[in-house]
Amino acid sequence: MSILLVGEFGAEEYARWRENLAACLAGDEILRLATDKYDPASIEIALVANPPAGSLVGLRNLRLIQSLWAGVDRLLSDATVPAHVPIVRLIDPNLTQAMTECALACVMFLHRQFPAYAEQQATREWKKRPQTLARQRRVGILGFGQLGQAVAAALASLNFDVEAWSARSHSFEGIRTRTGQSGLAALLERSDILINLLPLTAETADILNANLFRQLPRGASIVNLARGGHLDEGSLLDALASGHLAHAILDVFREEPLPRDHPFWSHPRITALPHVAAETDMKTAAKIAADNIREFRGSRMPAPLVDRAKGY
Amino acid sequence: MSILLVGEFGAEEYARWRENLAACLAGDEILRLATDKYDPASIEIALVANPPAGSLVGLRNLRLIQSLWAGVDRLLSDATVPAHVPIVRLIDPNLTQAMTECALACVMFLHRQFPAYAEQQATREWKKRPQTLARQRRVGILGFGQLGQAVAAALASLNFDVEAWSARSHSFEGIRTRTGQSGLAALLERSDILINLLPLTAETADILNANLFRQLPRGASIVNLARGGHLDEGSLLDALASGHLAHAILDVFREEPLPRDHPFWSHPRITALPHVAAETDMKTAAKIAADNIREFRGSRMPAPLVDRAKGY
Repeated sequence: MSILLVGEFGAEEYARWRENLAACLAGDEILRLATDKYDPASIEIALVANPPAGSLVGLRNLRLIQSLWAGVDRLLSDATVPAHVPIVRLIDPNLTQAMTECALACVMFLHRQFPAYAEQQATREWKKRPQTLARQRRVGILGFGQLGQAVAAALASLNFDVEAWSARSHSFEGIRTRTGQSGLAALLERSDILINLLPLTAETADILNANLFRQLPRGASIVNLARGGHLDEGSLLDALASGHLAHAILDVFREEPLPRDHPFWSHPRITALPHVAAETDMKTAAKIAADNIREFRGSRMPAPLVDRAKGY
Repeated sequence: MSILLVGEFGAEEYARWRENLAACLAGDEILRLATDKYDPASIEIALVANPPAGSLVGLRNLRLIQSLWAGVDRLLSDATVPAHVPIVRLIDPNLTQAMTECALACVMFLHRQFPAYAEQQATREWKKRPQTLARQRRVGILGFGQLGQAVAAALASLNFDVEAWSARSHSFEGIRTRTGQSGLAALLERSDILINLLPLTAETADILNANLFRQLPRGASIVNLARGGHLDEGSLLDALASGHLAHAILDVFREEPLPRDHPFWSHPRITALPHVAAETDMKTAAKIAADNIREFRGSRMPAPLVDRAKGY
């Protein structure tokens, strides 16, 4: 039985994945979709990263789909993925750490008013703006899984006034968590900075929209580190134009790379990053995927198992 | 006996200082240099913030100079300040916290390559740059007093690889500290990001110069949160032009406000802030100064007492 590697990789990226995986999966044959020759019936496990729709059709002996990424929204939107095969997401402490550091960078940038001071520098204006300490700065986090919890803990350790919202209720020392529509409203009305770390599901698509922005305090800023599909782009432009929102930091977009003629590129109140919040570290990701495969073959289901009904 | 308030205050700023001080010093008369009428012999204590040279001449019964700021370089460069009168600096936990938050914002901004991504955004270039985790990022801190220690501790708590240098040797859990010229050289050669938090003295004036920049690794960035007199401006422009330094964040300048025709304003690789790293909080500063005055009158010398030979 063999392992199939499926994703939109360039040749060099593919070669590096294969090398890193082979180092942790001695004895397994690792095949690549479309370019390698293989009998579809021989494929036991698929390792997937952003797989094109239809990639897994015909693999009748497939027993496990291990994602090489944290997000599985593209996989779940593909109706051809066999419903009986378990899907396991990748939780890599290095990826969580990178995401946490990116979120901290975004929050500190907004907290210490770097965008406003950059505008002043451009016009040679020497003006001190009122100083706010972290304990007076209210940060709201949408999504409270591995990433949201790590980001919340790091922000709380720097004294930010943090609350988090998620679909399921959580308890977490030192962080007030909210759930449901009333919980969301309560979180929004007190968030000077709102960070989105939600999974993309039918419920969360377009959640960053005009109705949500309206509930934030005037002058709030948003940070989207999750998926482009969470953001209603036109509503963001409107909220920035009216001055209701002060700034947005966006790492993800509905179309990536962001098209050259997209208005976000040149918007003075948008900081656009090229989907770099948390790069997968192939070395650690390959090791975690390999450990999960061994666990699965040893008849224990690795975690976290995707719940298709929830969408993550 | 009375208290004299001395500084380059505007009328509104002066009124707020007086109000905050009066609230903590009931029973004391608080007078203002130059505008209020008083007998110079009646002045027991001077509360000073950036006092113009010569301000304290003729106060023959002066027993204590309490600075309302952390830095006393301007006071010590004034030869007319009576040498026998003790000078006490102000250590305000709120100011330390603000400085720590500003230093974190600067380090995260550089660590996560915000300047490089802003350049890419300006040219609509979608390009992922190699990701570095905090534990792989080497930060050097010049100055290891109250501020340097607080900044080092916060950076270390976020996993940065931190070292600090100061004139006196210190031991501090979890932070490698260095001293002397060889210690400085060792710190510089491993600092991807260098933060200056030194006091301005004869020894530290112009310390950020061509010789120092040369010892940093190529592509390093600097952050000056201390005094404009620490930086040789021409050398910085040269080091940025050659590409040896990648970026500089400057909060302080030799002349403030930064003159409108100064090249720093429009330099693409300089982030200029209008001396806002740590604003004095009048309310907490007035309370600390008042507590120090009561301690002094109770015959205990408040801390930290300035050592004129060391210059801070």
